[in-house]
Amino acid sequence: MITVYGMRVSGNCWKASQILRLTGHEFHWVETDTQNGDTATQAFRALNPQGEVPVVVLDDGTVLTQSNAILAHFAEGTAWMPAPGLARTRVLQWLFWEQYSHEPYIAVARNLITYRGQKQAQAERLALCAERGAKALGVMEQRLAGHDFLTDAGPSVADLALFAYTHVADEGEFELAAYPGVAAWVARVAALPGIVPLPKPISAA
Amino acid sequence: MITVYGMRVSGNCWKASQILRLTGHEFHWVETDTQNGDTATQAFRALNPQGEVPVVVLDDGTVLTQSNAILAHFAEGTAWMPAPGLARTRVLQWLFWEQYSHEPYIAVARNLITYRGQKQAQAERLALCAERGAKALGVMEQRLAGHDFLTDAGPSVADLALFAYTHVADEGEFELAAYPGVAAWVARVAALPGIVPLPKPISAA
Repeated sequence: MITVYGMRVSGNCWKASQILRLTGHEFHWVETDTQNGDTATQAFRALNPQGEVPVVVLDDGTVLTQSNAILAHFAEGTAWMPAPGLARTRVLQWLFWEQYSHEPYIAVARNLITYRGQKQAQAERLALCAERGAKALGVMEQRLAGHDFLTDAGPSVADLALFAYTHVADEGEFELAAYPGVAAWVARVAALPGIVPLPKPISAA
Repeated sequence: MITVYGMRVSGNCWKASQILRLTGHEFHWVETDTQNGDTATQAFRALNPQGEVPVVVLDDGTVLTQSNAILAHFAEGTAWMPAPGLARTRVLQWLFWEQYSHEPYIAVARNLITYRGQKQAQAERLALCAERGAKALGVMEQRLAGHDFLTDAGPSVADLALFAYTHVADEGEFELAAYPGVAAWVARVAALPGIVPLPKPISAA
């Protein structure tokens, strides 16, 4: 069976479990906490020398890394990834944009504020996250104010990649009420069959 | 004819012109300086509201953004992008890794040091770039010490994406001599038919 090494509260790891569920793959989850040394062990480094999660291990031992590459891998040949051509390129644009212009601010703000309790200690970094994160949500709003999904191909891995940290952006102190198109899209994606949102933190910082 | 809006010294823009050349597309280049306001004009924002280069405009007016999505778009159906399956996923892993773990440090160090002359003013940021950039080159070395190209599929857009800023990493004060596998790979990619390296800066800061 496929094995996924990941943290349950991580949006990047959520992408792996979500696409596996949506494409009918059973998998075994190994909770792997990046904060308590689980990714620093020799055994984990043998799987992924970079010490990052998610890591997906196939039946034959093949190791897959990079959350958006994992999305693309399992989506290939399904409705979650359009056929090659402009439709696929639009999906890839959002996937690359997510990792460069969205995740580094919205995921990082959530982690520092809600999971590490470093709101004061990291005030300067969080100010940058707030500014760039708001810009990213603005880019999404521009599209989603007038469209149901991020690309014209209908629900795709682009929506999954962006849903990962957008639906928990409040944990990074972003207010989705200010982005009504984004908020409506979050509800729309959450209502798709088989979507299981991230768990809420046990106690907010 | 295809039009490319980009800066000649930008590695991300280089990717667009390079894949177009390699796949036999003629194009018209519009030099677009992100530092002097070229990307802030109403005309440019109409093409790309985010104000980023490269932007590729097809004959029918279709606008493509995100350098690695542009690589994938034109590489589709050529030897630069393997068919769907594990070989393609390996290429995508490197493309996502490049934008998240390589470009933000190696490209940024080069820009601040060589093109903006902010070596002193941005000392703290450059210290982070030096550390993370060295880590990224170490990851590449781990692969390239024993292989000719980044994936087993031979030269691909993964090599183009990483070549973009690695072959000018010295302009960000990274010494490739410390990474012999990477240095040999840079020479190997540069020697491929049709590869045109970035221009050297007129005066180093």
